[in-house]
Amino acid sequence: MKYSNLFTKTSKDVSSGEVSKNAQLLIKAGYVHKTMAGVYSLLPLGLRTINKIENIVRTRMNEIGGQEILMNSLHPKEWWVKTGRWDSVDILFKLDSQTGAEYALACSHEEQMTPIIKQFVSSWRDLPETDIENGVFPLSVYQIQTKFRDELRAKSGVMRGREFKMKDMYDFHATQESADKYYEAVKEAYLKAYGDMGLEVYPTEASGGIFTNNPSHEFQAVCPAGEDTTYIDPSTKVMYNEEIAPSKISSPNQPEDLRELEKHYLEGVIGVNEIVKKLGVDIKKSTKMVFYQNGSKLIAAIVRSDYNINLEKLSKISGAGNLEIAAEELVEKITGSKIGYAGLYNLPAEVDLYVDDSLENLHNFETGGNETGLHVTNCNFGRDVALPENFVDIKIVKKGDINPTTNQEYEIKTTAEVGNIFKFGTKYTKAFDITFTDQDNKLQYPISGAHGLGITRCMGVIAEIFSDDKGLVWPESVAPFKYHLITNINPKDDSDVNEQITDLANKIYSGSYDKIDTAENVFWDNRSKVGLGQKFGDAELMGLPWQIVVSKRSLENGGIELINRASGEKEIISIL
Amino acid sequence: MKYSNLFTKTSKDVSSGEVSKNAQLLIKAGYVHKTMAGVYSLLPLGLRTINKIENIVRTRMNEIGGQEILMNSLHPKEWWVKTGRWDSVDILFKLDSQTGAEYALACSHEEQMTPIIKQFVSSWRDLPETDIENGVFPLSVYQIQTKFRDELRAKSGVMRGREFKMKDMYDFHATQESADKYYEAVKEAYLKAYGDMGLEVYPTEASGGIFTNNPSHEFQAVCPAGEDTTYIDPSTKVMYNEEIAPSKISSPNQPEDLRELEKHYLEGVIGVNEIVKKLGVDIKKSTKMVFYQNGSKLIAAIVRSDYNINLEKLSKISGAGNLEIAAEELVEKITGSKIGYAGLYNLPAEVDLYVDDSLENLHNFETGGNETGLHVTNCNFGRDVALPENFVDIKIVKKGDINPTTNQEYEIKTTAEVGNIFKFGTKYTKAFDITFTDQDNKLQYPISGAHGLGITRCMGVIAEIFSDDKGLVWPESVAPFKYHLITNINPKDDSDVNEQITDLANKIYSGSYDKIDTAENVFWDNRSKVGLGQKFGDAELMGLPWQIVVSKRSLENGGIELINRASGEKEIISIL
Repeated sequence: MKYSNLFTKTSKDVSSGEVSKNAQLLIKAGYVHKTMAGVYSLLPLGLRTINKIENIVRTRMNEIGGQEILMNSLHPKEWWVKTGRWDSVDILFKLDSQTGAEYALACSHEEQMTPIIKQFVSSWRDLPETDIENGVFPLSVYQIQTKFRDELRAKSGVMRGREFKMKDMYDFHATQESADKYYEAVKEAYLKAYGDMGLEVYPTEASGGIFTNNPSHEFQAVCPAGEDTTYIDPSTKVMYNEEIAPSKISSPNQPEDLRELEKHYLEGVIGVNEIVKKLGVDIKKSTKMVFYQNGSKLIAAIVRSDYNINLEKLSKISGAGNLEIAAEELVEKITGSKIGYAGLYNLPAEVDLYVDDSLENLHNFETGGNETGLHVTNCNFGRDVALPENFVDIKIVKKGDINPTTNQEYEIKTTAEVGNIFKFGTKYTKAFDITFTDQDNKLQYPISGAHGLGITRCMGVIAEIFSDDKGLVWPESVAPFKYHLITNINPKDDSDVNEQITDLANKIYSGSYDKIDTAENVFWDNRSKVGLGQKFGDAELMGLPWQIVVSKRSLENGGIELINRASGEKEIISIL
Repeated sequence: MKYSNLFTKTSKDVSSGEVSKNAQLLIKAGYVHKTMAGVYSLLPLGLRTINKIENIVRTRMNEIGGQEILMNSLHPKEWWVKTGRWDSVDILFKLDSQTGAEYALACSHEEQMTPIIKQFVSSWRDLPETDIENGVFPLSVYQIQTKFRDELRAKSGVMRGREFKMKDMYDFHATQESADKYYEAVKEAYLKAYGDMGLEVYPTEASGGIFTNNPSHEFQAVCPAGEDTTYIDPSTKVMYNEEIAPSKISSPNQPEDLRELEKHYLEGVIGVNEIVKKLGVDIKKSTKMVFYQNGSKLIAAIVRSDYNINLEKLSKISGAGNLEIAAEELVEKITGSKIGYAGLYNLPAEVDLYVDDSLENLHNFETGGNETGLHVTNCNFGRDVALPENFVDIKIVKKGDINPTTNQEYEIKTTAEVGNIFKFGTKYTKAFDITFTDQDNKLQYPISGAHGLGITRCMGVIAEIFSDDKGLVWPESVAPFKYHLITNINPKDDSDVNEQITDLANKIYSGSYDKIDTAENVFWDNRSKVGLGQKFGDAELMGLPWQIVVSKRSLENGGIELINRASGEKEIISIL
C-alpha cells in the first residue's frame, strides 16, 4: 500500500476524552476512528491488523476441528427467556421492532448455537468422542463475529467495547470425558494463538460470571492497563483471578493467654473502622459477619475484619447458588437485634454459619453480640463461642496472602483478560431440550462448552504492551505490513540519484528486490511533499516492525538502511 | 472438507413457513439455518459461499482504489438526527442503552462515513481527481459489513434480510467531474463483480428512495422470485426500474369531432370505476385528478384514468420535494367542492397543475367539475378547459407502454435488485459541515457518492437462478467447493478394490492426483454407513459444480467418473 492511496493520516491529537493509551495510539496512528466510548471503526491499517489476528485464531481453531460458521445478532426474545438471561444479563441490548416483536442484540451466542445443534443431533453418532491425535474431532463450531454489550462504563479504549469482534466456539459431547479432553485442547489452542500474536498469556482459574457455575479459565495477559488483578503462585506458576484465588493469611494467629470477656454497648457505632477505633482494638483482632440469602435460604459468613467476604467462594462452599445480601428485616428477626451488631457471640445455633480460616486460632477477638448496641472483646472459641467444626476459605484474597496448597506468597500482577473458556455441562442443552440417544438407546442431554477470545481486545492489549513513547511497536505476526518503506527525493539533487532511489523503491515495493523478501508486505511512504523528519515520525508512530530507508544519504552510506522499530538497531544493506 | 467432519446434514423438510425457493434450498442443503423471517445463520458451506462472493466483490472494489475499512453498527442518535433520517427511515432499529443514551442500529453508513472523513479532509489535495487509467484513485472507502433493517415483511428468504451482509462504498470528490467519472467506474466494477459470480445483471435507472433525489442506478438480475419489475428498451437495452421508467401511451389519442359538453350530477358516486360504469364512458376517455402537498405547497396532477400518478416523476418535474396526498379540507377549500369531484372543468386558475401526456390530443373526455356531485363528459381542451402549456410524463409505466425517446415498446421482466449506486452531491457533507479549501483557497463541500451491493442477497439470487428440481447448481466461482467426491466402499467387496478406491480418493482429496487439479477444492462424502443413492441425492442438493465418483463400478467402467452437476454430462477419466 502506498501512503498516497491511504485516506487516513497520523495526527498529534485525539478526540477529547480518550484516556486509554491503546486507543490514543491507535487513533493517532490512523488505525481506528472513535465513534463513542467503547465503539471504534477500523480504518485500513486497523482492519489489516484485525484480519491478521483473526487469521491466527482461525488457524488454531481449525487445527482442533473447529467448523467456522457465522451466526446473527438479532435473536428472538424467547431464546433468552428460556435460559433466564433476558432479565439477568444487564448488558443485553433489547430491541423493539415495528412488527411488534422484541429482539435481543446478542452479547453471546449460546442461545443461538444450541437451537442450531438441535437440527443436527439425534444420536451419539452425531457427537464424536474427542480424539484429536487420531483426527477425530467432536462437534465443535466457531465464529468470528461482532458482539454488542451495553456496558455502563467503557474507559479502556478498544480493550472494552460496546461493540467488538470476538471469536466464540461451542462444542457438544456425548460424554464428560470427551468434553474435558476438548476443554484442554481448546486451552492449548488458545495459548498457541496468543503466542502467535506475541502475547504472554496465562490461563487462570476463574469464576464463570454470568455464564456458568462450572469450572472456567480466563486467559490473562500481563498488561498495566488491564482491569484484572491476577494472583500467581511463584512455585507452580499457576495463576488465579482475584475473584477465585484460594488464600490463607500469611502470619498465622498466635496462641495467647485468654483475657476476660468484655461487653461494650455502642449503639450507633456502625462499621468495622468506627468500631475498632472506638474500642482501641487491632483490626486483626476484630471480626465481620454478613448475612446472605438466596430466596428463603439464609446463611451467615464471618471473616477477620481486615478481609472481605468472597461471594463466589461462599456460594460454592455453601452450595447456596446466587447469593445476595440478606434483607434487613430477616437479619433482625434471626439475630433479635438491629442490623450492625451480628457476630459470633450469642448467635442462635440454627444459623447456617461459615467461618473463614482467618479466624483460625484467633484469640481475644472482638465480635458482634446479636443485641442492639452490643459488641464483645476478648472473645474466645470454646469458651465464649462454639469452636466451628471447620474453618473455610471464604475471603477475598489480598496482597501478602499465601496459596494454601503451596504455602507460597502470591505475586500480584495487573492483567487484561483476552479470553475465557467454560464448561457448561448440560445447562444450555437442557434449557433448549436437546437430547440424543446414547449407545444404550437412552435419551441424554449433550454436554457443552463455550470458549470466547476477544479479537478486538487482543489488538488493544497488544497496542498497550507493544508500544513506547514514540508510538506503536507491532509484533511481525499482527503488523498490518512488515516493512515501512521511506523514500526521500529532493528535486534539487542530481537526477541520477533520484532515479536510483525510485528504481530501488519500486523494486522493494513490488517484491522483486532480491535482498529482502518484501512481497505484498510493504507500506510505502511515497509522499512527495513531506520531509524525512515527518516520515520517520509517522513510521515510529505507526509501528511497523522494519523501516527501510532509501535516500541520497543511505546511498552515500553504502545502500539501503534497515531499521528495527523495536530495538532501533540500524543496518546498511549494500546494493552492490 | 470431509462430510464426517461437517456437523450439518441435508434434510428433506424446512422449518415451517419458509416460502422462498432460495431459503428452502439453502436450508435443505445445510447452507443456512433460519433464526426467523429475514434472519439466517451461515453454516459452514454457506459461509464458504459468502466468503467467495465477498472476495469477488473485494477484488473488484480494490481494483478501483477502494480502501477497505470496517465501521460499526451502534451509531449515536445525533448523527441520524443531523441528516433527518432518525425520524424518516421507518426500517431503522433504535436502541435504548442502560446509560440513558439512544443509538441507531445502522441500516446504512453515510451517517458514519461522513464524520470519519472530516478528520482527514481539509484541502483539495486530500481529494484526488479520479484518473483510474493512470492509477490515481479518489478518496474511496468501502466495507463489507452486517446491516440491520426492521423490515415489516421479509418473505424472500435470504434475498431480503432484517440482518444481512452488504458491501457499501463511499467516495468523496473536489469536483463533479471526478464524482461522475468514479460513478461510471463503480458501475463497471459492479458489472464485473456480478459477471464473476455468474449473474446476468443490468444497471437500471432508478429513484434514490430514502437516500437521495439525485440520479442513481439499480443493478437488477433477471429472477422470477425478484420483487422488482424492470422495463427494458429492446433497441437500446437500457433498463428502467418501474418507479422511474419514462413512458408514453402506445396508441396516441386520435382526432375526433367535438361533441357537446354534458353535465352529470352523481353525488356519492366515487372512484374511477364507479364513474365510468355509471356514465358508460370508455376508461380511456376518463381522467383522474389528485392533489398533493408538501407543507403549504399544493399541486394538482391529472392522468388518463387507465393510469396512475407516479409520485417520483411528479416530485421531480414539479420540484416540489417529498409530496403526499393533500389534506381533504385543503382540496375542498381550493375546489369549492367535496372531495371526489376535482377535475379540469372549472378548475381555479391559480392551481399549480401538471397534466400527463396521456391526455395529449384527448377529445370528448370525462373530467371532474369541481362542484360537489358534478362530472362532465365530452369535455375538450381549448373549448371547455384551457389547453395546458405543455403535457408531461407523470404516469406509472405499464405493460404496452413505449419509451418516449426510442418509441419502442418495453419488454418487462421480473428482477431482483442486487446493488444500487447513488450520487449524493453535497447532501451528507453539508449535513455534517465538512469542507475543504479548493485551489483558489475557497471553502467548498466535497461531493459524495455511495454504492451498495447486497452480498447475502447475491447468494439468494444465485440460489434462485442456479437451481433445478434436484437442488442447487452453483457457478464455480461461488461454490463452496468445486468438487464433490463420492466414494463407495462395500465391505463385502474384495479388499484390493476397496484399497484402490481409498488410495485414489485420498489422492484426489489431497490434491496430488495429477489428472484433475483438485487442491483444497474437494468436499469428500466419506461417510461409511450411507449408500450411494443418498450420497448422489445429497450431492445434487448441495450443488457443487463437479461430482467425482470413485466406486467399484466406476473402476469397472475404466476409472473415475466425472459428472457435471449443471448438464448431467458424465465422463470417465481413465486411471491408467
